[in-house]
Amino acid sequence: MVRALFFDVFGTVVDWRNGVAREARRILEPLGVAIDWTAFADAWRDRYQPTMQKVRSGQMPYANLDVLHRENLEQIKGTFGLDRLDDATLAALNLAWHRLDAWDDAKRAFPRLHKRFLMAPVSNGNIAIMVDIARHNGIVWDAILGAEIARDFKPKPRVYLSAAEALALRPEECMMVAAHSSDLAAARKNGLKTAFVARPNEGPGKESEPAEAFDVVARSFDELAQKLGA
Amino acid sequence: MVRALFFDVFGTVVDWRNGVAREARRILEPLGVAIDWTAFADAWRDRYQPTMQKVRSGQMPYANLDVLHRENLEQIKGTFGLDRLDDATLAALNLAWHRLDAWDDAKRAFPRLHKRFLMAPVSNGNIAIMVDIARHNGIVWDAILGAEIARDFKPKPRVYLSAAEALALRPEECMMVAAHSSDLAAARKNGLKTAFVARPNEGPGKESEPAEAFDVVARSFDELAQKLGA
Repeated sequence: MVRALFFDVFGTVVDWRNGVAREARRILEPLGVAIDWTAFADAWRDRYQPTMQKVRSGQMPYANLDVLHRENLEQIKGTFGLDRLDDATLAALNLAWHRLDAWDDAKRAFPRLHKRFLMAPVSNGNIAIMVDIARHNGIVWDAILGAEIARDFKPKPRVYLSAAEALALRPEECMMVAAHSSDLAAARKNGLKTAFVARPNEGPGKESEPAEAFDVVARSFDELAQKLGA
Repeated sequence: MVRALFFDVFGTVVDWRNGVAREARRILEPLGVAIDWTAFADAWRDRYQPTMQKVRSGQMPYANLDVLHRENLEQIKGTFGLDRLDDATLAALNLAWHRLDAWDDAKRAFPRLHKRFLMAPVSNGNIAIMVDIARHNGIVWDAILGAEIARDFKPKPRVYLSAAEALALRPEECMMVAAHSSDLAAARKNGLKTAFVARPNEGPGKESEPAEAFDVVARSFDELAQKLGA
Protein backbone atom coordinates (compact mmCIF):
# COMPACT_ATOMS: atom_id res chain seq x y z
CA MET A 1 0.00 0.00 0.00
CA VAL A 2 1.70 3.18 -1.25
CA ARG A 3 1.21 6.17 1.06
CA ALA A 4 3.77 8.64 -0.28
CA LEU A 5 4.99 9.63 -3.73
CA PHE A 6 8.60 10.84 -3.99
CA PHE A 7 9.41 12.87 -7.09
CA ASP A 8 12.58 13.38 -8.97
CA VAL A 9 12.42 17.03 -10.03
CA PHE A 10 14.94 18.07 -12.74
CA GLY A 11 13.61 16.59 -15.95
CA THR A 12 10.72 14.73 -14.29
CA VAL A 13 8.71 17.63 -12.82
CA VAL A 14 10.41 20.63 -14.43
CA ASP A 15 11.90 21.36 -17.84
CA TRP A 16 15.44 22.32 -16.80
CA ARG A 17 16.72 22.70 -20.35
CA ASN A 18 14.36 25.35 -21.68
CA GLY A 19 14.19 27.03 -18.27
CA VAL A 20 17.93 27.49 -17.90
CA ALA A 21 18.23 28.59 -21.55
CA ARG A 22 15.43 31.16 -21.07
CA GLU A 23 16.84 32.55 -17.81
CA ALA A 24 20.38 32.76 -19.21
CA ARG A 25 19.09 34.68 -22.21
CA ARG A 26 16.98 36.99 -20.04
CA ILE A 27 19.99 37.88 -17.89
CA LEU A 28 22.80 37.89 -20.46
CA GLU A 29 21.27 39.19 -23.70
CA PRO A 30 20.89 42.74 -22.28
CA LEU A 31 24.64 42.58 -21.52
CA GLY A 32 25.33 41.96 -25.22
CA VAL A 33 25.94 38.22 -24.90
CA ALA A 34 24.88 36.17 -27.94
CA ILE A 35 25.44 32.43 -27.50
CA ASP A 36 23.56 29.20 -28.19
CA TRP A 37 21.37 29.29 -25.05
CA THR A 38 20.35 25.65 -25.23
CA ALA A 39 23.93 24.52 -25.71
CA PHE A 40 24.81 26.62 -22.63
CA ALA A 41 22.09 24.86 -20.59
CA ASP A 42 23.30 21.46 -21.80
CA ALA A 43 26.93 22.24 -20.99
CA TRP A 44 26.00 23.39 -17.48
CA ARG A 45 23.93 20.28 -16.89
CA ASP A 46 26.75 18.10 -18.27
CA ARG A 47 28.86 19.00 -15.24
CA TYR A 48 26.06 17.90 -12.84
CA GLN A 49 26.78 14.18 -12.39
CA PRO A 50 30.62 14.40 -12.31
CA THR A 51 30.51 17.09 -9.60
CA MET A 52 28.02 15.19 -7.42
CA GLN A 53 30.16 12.08 -7.87
CA LYS A 54 32.93 13.77 -5.89
CA VAL A 55 30.58 14.00 -2.91
CA ARG A 56 29.15 10.50 -3.35
CA SER A 57 32.63 9.02 -3.47
CA GLY A 58 33.76 10.91 -0.37
CA GLN A 59 36.34 12.89 -2.36
CA MET A 60 34.69 16.13 -1.15
CA PRO A 61 32.29 16.84 1.75
CA TYR A 62 28.60 17.46 1.09
CA ALA A 63 27.88 20.84 -0.48
CA ASN A 64 24.42 21.75 -1.69
CA LEU A 65 23.46 21.97 -5.33
CA ASP A 66 23.45 25.78 -5.37
CA VAL A 67 27.14 25.60 -4.47
CA LEU A 68 27.87 22.88 -7.03
CA HIS A 69 25.92 24.70 -9.76
CA ARG A 70 28.04 27.77 -9.12
CA GLU A 71 31.30 25.78 -9.28
CA ASN A 72 30.12 24.20 -12.53
CA LEU A 73 29.25 27.61 -13.94
CA GLU A 74 32.77 28.83 -13.19
CA GLN A 75 34.11 25.81 -15.09
CA ILE A 76 32.06 26.31 -18.25
CA LYS A 77 31.92 30.10 -18.48
CA GLY A 78 35.19 30.35 -20.43
CA THR A 79 33.89 28.07 -23.17
CA PHE A 80 31.04 30.52 -23.78
CA GLY A 81 33.17 33.67 -23.60
CA LEU A 82 31.62 34.66 -20.25
CA ASP A 83 34.85 35.19 -18.30
CA ARG A 84 34.17 38.86 -17.71
CA LEU A 85 30.79 38.44 -15.95
CA ASP A 86 30.81 39.97 -12.48
CA ASP A 87 29.90 38.13 -9.29
CA ALA A 88 26.36 39.55 -9.08
CA THR A 89 25.58 38.40 -12.63
CA LEU A 90 26.92 34.91 -11.96
CA ALA A 91 24.85 34.75 -8.75
CA ALA A 92 21.73 35.81 -10.66
CA LEU A 93 22.47 33.24 -13.35
CA ASN A 94 22.84 30.53 -10.69
CA LEU A 95 19.25 31.23 -9.62
CA ALA A 96 18.04 30.09 -13.05
CA TRP A 97 17.64 26.64 -11.45
CA HIS A 98 15.17 28.14 -8.94
CA ARG A 99 12.85 29.43 -11.69
CA LEU A 100 12.24 26.39 -13.86
CA ASP A 101 8.77 25.77 -15.27
CA ALA A 102 6.96 22.54 -14.45
CA TRP A 103 5.69 20.39 -17.30
CA ASP A 104 2.00 21.18 -17.85
CA ASP A 105 0.75 17.83 -16.55
CA ALA A 106 2.31 18.47 -13.11
CA LYS A 107 0.11 21.51 -12.56
CA ARG A 108 -2.86 19.51 -13.76
CA ALA A 109 -2.39 16.16 -11.99
CA PHE A 110 -0.63 17.10 -8.73
CA PRO A 111 -3.74 18.40 -6.91
CA ARG A 112 -5.47 15.11 -7.77
CA LEU A 113 -2.51 13.00 -6.58
CA HIS A 114 -2.20 15.14 -3.44
CA LYS A 115 -5.69 14.17 -2.29
CA ARG A 116 -4.63 10.55 -2.11
CA PHE A 117 -0.90 10.58 -1.31
CA LEU A 118 1.71 12.40 0.72
CA MET A 119 3.98 14.06 -1.83
CA ALA A 120 7.57 15.24 -1.53
CA PRO A 121 10.42 15.96 -3.88
CA VAL A 122 13.33 13.55 -3.41
CA SER A 123 15.72 15.47 -5.59
CA ASN A 124 19.43 16.19 -5.59
CA GLY A 125 18.45 19.85 -5.43
CA ASN A 126 18.65 21.61 -2.06
CA ILE A 127 15.67 22.87 -0.08
CA ALA A 128 15.89 26.49 -1.30
CA ILE A 129 15.77 25.41 -4.96
CA MET A 130 12.82 23.10 -4.29
CA VAL A 131 10.91 25.77 -2.33
CA ASP A 132 11.40 28.36 -5.08
CA ILE A 133 10.40 25.93 -7.85
CA ALA A 134 7.27 24.97 -5.91
CA ARG A 135 6.26 28.62 -5.42
CA HIS A 136 7.03 29.45 -9.05
CA ASN A 137 4.70 26.68 -10.23
CA GLY A 138 2.06 26.62 -7.49
CA ILE A 139 3.06 23.12 -6.39
CA VAL A 140 2.14 22.05 -2.85
CA TRP A 141 4.48 19.54 -1.20
CA ASP A 142 4.02 17.96 2.23
CA ALA A 143 7.74 18.25 2.93
CA ILE A 144 10.98 18.84 1.06
CA LEU A 145 13.04 15.67 1.34
CA GLY A 146 16.06 14.44 -0.65
CA ALA A 147 19.73 15.31 -0.81
CA GLU A 148 19.85 18.11 1.76
CA ILE A 149 18.19 15.94 4.41
CA ALA A 150 20.46 13.00 3.58
CA ARG A 151 23.57 15.13 3.02
CA ASP A 152 24.45 12.96 0.04
CA PHE A 153 23.22 12.59 -3.53
CA LYS A 154 21.06 10.06 -5.35
CA PRO A 155 21.51 7.25 -6.21
CA LYS A 156 23.15 6.72 -2.77
CA PRO A 157 20.78 4.59 -0.61
CA ARG A 158 20.69 7.12 2.24
CA VAL A 159 18.77 9.63 0.11
CA TYR A 160 15.84 7.26 -0.52
CA LEU A 161 15.87 5.74 2.96
CA SER A 162 16.08 9.05 4.83
CA ALA A 163 13.04 10.26 2.89
CA ALA A 164 10.95 7.27 3.96
CA GLU A 165 12.19 7.60 7.56
CA ALA A 166 11.32 11.31 7.66
CA LEU A 167 7.68 10.39 7.01
CA ALA A 168 7.85 7.44 9.43
CA LEU A 169 7.06 5.08 6.53
CA ARG A 170 8.59 1.79 5.45
CA PRO A 171 10.38 1.94 2.05
CA GLU A 172 7.66 -0.18 0.42
CA GLU A 173 5.04 2.40 1.43
CA CYS A 174 6.85 4.98 -0.73
CA MET A 175 6.92 5.20 -4.52
CA MET A 176 9.74 6.98 -6.37
CA VAL A 177 8.51 8.75 -9.51
CA ALA A 178 11.13 9.63 -12.13
CA ALA A 179 11.82 9.89 -15.84
CA HIS A 180 15.21 8.22 -15.33
CA SER A 181 15.69 4.47 -14.98
CA SER A 182 18.91 4.75 -12.96
CA ASP A 183 17.11 6.74 -10.24
CA LEU A 184 14.26 4.21 -10.12
CA ALA A 185 16.59 1.21 -10.15
CA ALA A 186 18.35 2.59 -7.05
CA ALA A 187 15.05 3.34 -5.33
CA ARG A 188 13.86 -0.20 -6.05
CA LYS A 189 17.09 -1.70 -4.72
CA ASN A 190 16.31 0.10 -1.46
CA GLY A 191 12.82 -1.31 -1.22
CA LEU A 192 10.74 1.55 -2.65
CA LYS A 193 8.01 1.12 -5.25
CA THR A 194 8.76 2.77 -8.59
CA ALA A 195 6.93 4.69 -11.31
CA PHE A 196 8.51 5.68 -14.61
CA VAL A 197 7.01 8.76 -16.27
CA ALA A 198 8.39 9.39 -19.75
CA ARG A 199 9.71 12.87 -20.59
CA PRO A 200 10.48 12.70 -24.31
CA ASN A 201 11.13 16.45 -24.43
CA GLU A 202 13.74 16.53 -21.64
CA GLY A 203 16.62 16.75 -24.10
CA PRO A 204 19.91 15.14 -23.03
CA GLY A 205 19.19 12.28 -20.61
CA LYS A 206 15.70 11.63 -21.94
CA GLU A 207 14.47 8.04 -22.06
CA SER A 208 11.52 7.13 -24.25
CA GLU A 209 11.18 3.73 -22.58
CA PRO A 210 12.14 2.52 -19.10
CA ALA A 211 15.23 0.30 -18.95
CA GLU A 212 13.55 -2.11 -16.50
CA ALA A 213 10.00 -3.22 -15.67
CA PHE A 214 9.03 -0.76 -12.92
CA ASP A 215 5.81 -1.01 -10.88
CA VAL A 216 4.06 1.65 -12.95
CA VAL A 217 4.92 3.07 -16.37
CA ALA A 218 3.10 6.18 -17.57
CA ARG A 219 3.38 8.77 -20.35
CA SER A 220 2.28 11.64 -18.09
CA PHE A 221 1.32 12.53 -14.50
CA ASP A 222 -2.31 12.34 -15.63
CA GLU A 223 -1.79 8.72 -16.60
CA LEU A 224 0.12 8.12 -13.36
CA ALA A 225 -2.84 9.46 -11.37
CA GLN A 226 -5.21 7.26 -13.31
CA LYS A 227 -3.07 4.14 -12.83
CA LEU A 228 -2.76 4.85 -9.10
CA GLY A 229 -6.52 5.33 -8.75
CA ALA A 230 -6.14 8.98 -7.69
CA MET B 1 12.95 42.92 5.10
CA VAL B 2 11.36 39.71 6.38
CA ARG B 3 10.98 37.03 3.69
CA ALA B 4 10.14 33.94 5.76
CA LEU B 5 8.05 33.27 8.85
CA PHE B 6 9.18 30.40 11.08
CA PHE B 7 6.51 29.00 13.41
CA ASP B 8 6.76 27.31 16.73
CA VAL B 9 4.01 24.69 16.57
CA PHE B 10 3.06 23.10 19.93
CA GLY B 11 1.08 25.75 21.76
CA THR B 12 1.60 28.43 19.10
CA VAL B 13 -0.12 26.85 16.08
CA VAL B 14 -1.86 23.87 17.67
CA ASP B 15 -3.65 23.24 20.96
CA TRP B 16 -1.59 20.29 22.26
CA ARG B 17 -3.40 20.08 25.60
CA ASN B 18 -6.98 19.54 24.45
CA GLY B 19 -5.78 17.50 21.48
CA VAL B 20 -3.77 15.02 23.52
CA ALA B 21 -6.56 14.79 26.13
CA ARG B 22 -9.13 14.11 23.39
CA GLU B 23 -7.03 11.48 21.62
CA ALA B 24 -6.14 9.71 24.87
CA ARG B 25 -9.80 9.54 25.80
CA ARG B 26 -10.79 8.32 22.32
CA ILE B 27 -8.26 5.48 22.49
CA LEU B 28 -8.40 4.54 26.17
CA GLU B 29 -12.00 5.04 27.27
CA PRO B 30 -13.21 2.06 25.16
CA LEU B 31 -10.62 -0.02 27.09
CA GLY B 32 -12.29 0.93 30.37
CA VAL B 33 -9.73 3.58 31.37
CA ALA B 34 -11.14 6.50 33.37
CA ILE B 35 -8.54 9.13 34.26
CA ASP B 36 -8.25 12.92 34.28
CA TRP B 37 -7.47 13.32 30.55
CA THR B 38 -6.17 16.87 30.84
CA ALA B 39 -3.93 15.94 33.76
CA PHE B 40 -2.61 13.08 31.61
CA ALA B 41 -1.82 15.51 28.75
CA ASP B 42 -0.10 17.88 31.18
CA ALA B 43 1.96 15.09 32.76
CA TRP B 44 3.10 13.87 29.34
CA ARG B 45 4.03 17.39 28.27
CA ASP B 46 5.88 17.94 31.58
CA ARG B 47 8.48 15.39 30.52
CA TYR B 48 9.10 17.24 27.23
CA GLN B 49 11.80 19.76 28.18
CA PRO B 50 13.81 17.48 30.54
CA THR B 51 14.03 14.74 27.90
CA MET B 52 15.11 17.12 25.13
CA GLN B 53 17.66 18.58 27.51
CA LYS B 54 19.53 15.26 27.48
CA VAL B 55 20.04 15.68 23.73
CA ARG B 56 20.88 19.37 23.93
CA SER B 57 23.51 18.72 26.58
CA GLY B 58 25.08 15.86 24.62
CA GLN B 59 24.10 13.30 27.29
CA MET B 60 22.23 11.34 24.61
CA PRO B 61 22.43 11.39 20.79
CA TYR B 62 19.66 13.04 18.75
CA ALA B 63 16.44 11.06 18.68
CA ASN B 64 13.31 12.47 17.13
CA LEU B 65 10.31 13.64 19.12
CA ASP B 66 8.21 10.57 18.28
CA VAL B 67 10.88 8.52 20.04
CA LEU B 68 11.12 10.91 22.99
CA HIS B 69 7.32 11.10 23.34
CA ARG B 70 7.20 7.32 23.53
CA GLU B 71 9.94 7.21 26.21
CA ASN B 72 8.08 9.86 28.18
CA LEU B 73 4.85 7.90 27.88
CA GLU B 74 6.58 4.83 29.33
CA GLN B 75 7.73 6.98 32.25
CA ILE B 76 4.32 8.40 33.13
CA LYS B 77 2.04 5.47 32.36
CA GLY B 78 2.40 3.92 35.83
CA THR B 79 1.17 7.11 37.50
CA PHE B 80 -2.09 6.80 35.57
CA GLY B 81 -2.52 3.06 36.09
CA LEU B 82 -1.73 2.33 32.43
CA ASP B 83 0.97 -0.29 32.97
CA ARG B 84 -1.01 -3.04 31.28
CA LEU B 85 -1.47 -1.26 27.92
CA ASP B 86 -0.05 -3.30 25.03
CA ASP B 87 2.49 -2.02 22.54
CA ALA B 88 -0.06 -1.32 19.79
CA THR B 89 -2.13 0.85 22.13
CA LEU B 90 0.92 2.79 23.30
CA ALA B 91 1.94 3.30 19.66
CA ALA B 92 -1.55 4.57 18.79
CA LEU B 93 -1.49 6.87 21.81
CA ASN B 94 1.88 8.26 20.73
CA LEU B 95 0.26 9.39 17.46
CA ALA B 96 -1.98 11.75 19.45
CA TRP B 97 0.69 14.40 18.82
CA HIS B 98 0.17 13.96 15.04
CA ARG B 99 -3.55 14.78 15.27
CA LEU B 100 -3.64 18.07 17.13
CA ASP B 101 -6.08 20.77 16.09
CA ALA B 102 -4.80 24.18 15.05
CA TRP B 103 -6.13 27.26 16.79
CA ASP B 104 -8.91 28.75 14.64
CA ASP B 105 -6.94 31.85 13.64
CA ALA B 106 -4.24 29.71 11.99
CA LYS B 107 -6.69 28.30 9.48
CA ARG B 108 -8.01 31.82 8.89
CA ALA B 109 -4.80 33.86 8.66
CA PHE B 110 -2.25 31.41 7.20
CA PRO B 111 -3.48 31.63 3.58
CA ARG B 112 -3.18 35.41 3.84
CA LEU B 113 0.33 35.25 5.36
CA HIS B 114 1.35 32.65 2.78
CA LYS B 115 0.73 35.06 -0.10
CA ARG B 116 3.38 37.36 1.27
CA PHE B 117 5.91 35.14 3.08
CA LEU B 118 7.63 31.80 2.85
CA MET B 119 6.33 29.80 5.81
CA ALA B 120 7.82 26.83 7.64
CA PRO B 121 7.46 25.23 11.03
CA VAL B 122 10.63 25.51 13.10
CA SER B 123 9.49 23.14 15.81
CA ASN B 124 11.10 20.57 18.03
CA GLY B 125 8.69 18.08 16.47
CA ASN B 126 10.00 15.80 13.73
CA ILE B 127 9.01 15.94 10.06
CA ALA B 128 6.36 13.17 10.29
CA ILE B 129 4.54 14.95 13.14
CA MET B 130 4.62 18.26 11.25
CA VAL B 131 3.40 16.69 8.00
CA ASP B 132 0.48 14.95 9.74
CA ILE B 133 -0.52 18.08 11.68
CA ALA B 134 -0.44 20.11 8.45
CA ARG B 135 -2.64 17.60 6.62
CA HIS B 136 -5.02 17.32 9.59
CA ASN B 137 -5.53 21.10 9.56
CA GLY B 138 -5.17 21.96 5.87
CA ILE B 139 -2.02 23.99 6.50
CA VAL B 140 0.35 24.57 3.56
CA TRP B 141 4.03 24.94 4.42
CA ASP B 142 6.83 25.72 1.99
CA ALA B 143 9.15 23.29 3.80
CA ILE B 144 9.38 21.48 7.11
CA LEU B 145 12.40 22.88 8.96
CA GLY B 146 13.41 22.70 12.63
CA ALA B 147 14.82 20.02 14.92
CA GLU B 148 15.03 17.11 12.49
CA ILE B 149 17.00 19.19 9.98
CA ALA B 150 19.28 20.52 12.70
CA ARG B 151 19.44 17.22 14.62
CA ASP B 152 19.19 19.18 17.86
CA PHE B 153 16.43 20.95 19.76
CA LYS B 154 15.48 24.59 20.28
CA PRO B 155 16.68 26.80 21.83
CA LYS B 156 20.05 25.57 20.48
CA PRO B 157 21.32 28.08 17.86
CA ARG B 158 21.74 25.44 15.16
CA VAL B 159 17.97 24.94 14.91
CA TYR B 160 17.26 28.58 14.02
CA LEU B 161 20.34 29.01 11.85
CA SER B 162 19.86 25.79 9.86
CA ALA B 163 16.31 26.90 9.05
CA ALA B 164 17.50 30.22 7.60
CA GLU B 165 20.31 28.46 5.70
CA ALA B 166 17.88 25.92 4.22
CA LEU B 167 15.99 28.78 2.56
CA ALA B 168 19.25 30.53 1.57
CA LEU B 169 18.24 33.51 3.69
CA ARG B 170 20.15 35.59 6.22
CA PRO B 171 18.85 35.27 9.81
CA GLU B 172 17.47 38.83 9.75
CA GLU B 173 15.31 37.94 6.74
CA CYS B 174 13.51 35.35 8.90
CA MET B 175 10.99 35.98 11.68
CA MET B 176 10.36 33.44 14.42
CA VAL B 177 6.71 33.39 15.53
CA ALA B 178 5.96 31.86 18.95
CA ALA B 179 3.81 32.11 22.05
CA HIS B 180 6.89 31.52 24.22
CA SER B 181 9.41 34.22 25.12
CA SER B 182 12.29 31.77 25.66
CA ASP B 183 11.99 30.52 22.06
CA LEU B 184 11.89 34.07 20.71
CA ALA B 185 14.76 35.26 22.91
CA ALA B 186 16.96 32.48 21.48
CA ALA B 187 15.86 33.28 17.92
CA ARG B 188 16.68 36.93 18.47
CA LYS B 189 20.10 36.11 19.92
CA ASN B 190 20.80 34.33 16.63
CA GLY B 191 19.81 37.32 14.52
CA LEU B 192 16.24 36.46 13.57
CA LYS B 193 13.32 38.86 13.82
CA THR B 194 10.68 37.87 16.37
CA ALA B 195 6.90 37.93 16.75
CA PHE B 196 5.09 37.03 19.96
CA VAL B 197 1.55 35.72 19.51
CA ALA B 198 -0.30 35.26 22.80
CA ARG B 199 -2.00 31.91 23.48
CA PRO B 200 -3.88 32.49 26.74
CA ASN B 201 -5.64 29.11 26.38
CA GLU B 202 -2.50 27.02 26.02
CA GLY B 203 -2.63 25.82 29.59
CA PRO B 204 0.71 25.12 31.33
CA GLY B 205 3.43 27.25 29.73
CA LYS B 206 1.03 29.99 28.63
CA GLU B 207 2.23 33.59 28.69
CA SER B 208 -0.26 36.41 28.58
CA GLU B 209 2.44 38.97 27.94
CA PRO B 210 5.87 38.64 26.29
CA ALA B 211 8.85 38.73 28.68
CA GLU B 212 10.81 41.04 26.35
CA ALA B 213 10.04 43.65 23.70
CA PHE B 214 9.96 41.58 20.52
CA ASP B 215 9.66 43.06 17.00
CA VAL B 216 5.94 42.32 16.80
CA VAL B 217 3.43 41.48 19.53
CA ALA B 218 -0.02 40.21 18.54
CA ARG B 219 -3.03 38.59 20.15
CA SER B 220 -3.73 36.36 17.15
CA PHE B 221 -2.44 35.35 13.71
CA ASP B 222 -5.03 37.73 12.24
CA GLU B 223 -3.40 40.59 14.11
CA LEU B 224 0.03 39.31 13.10
CA ALA B 225 -1.01 39.36 9.43
CA GLN B 226 -2.36 42.88 9.83
CA LYS B 227 0.80 44.14 11.56
CA LEU B 228 3.00 42.55 8.87
CA GLY B 229 0.93 44.12 6.09
CA ALA B 230 -0.14 40.72 4.72
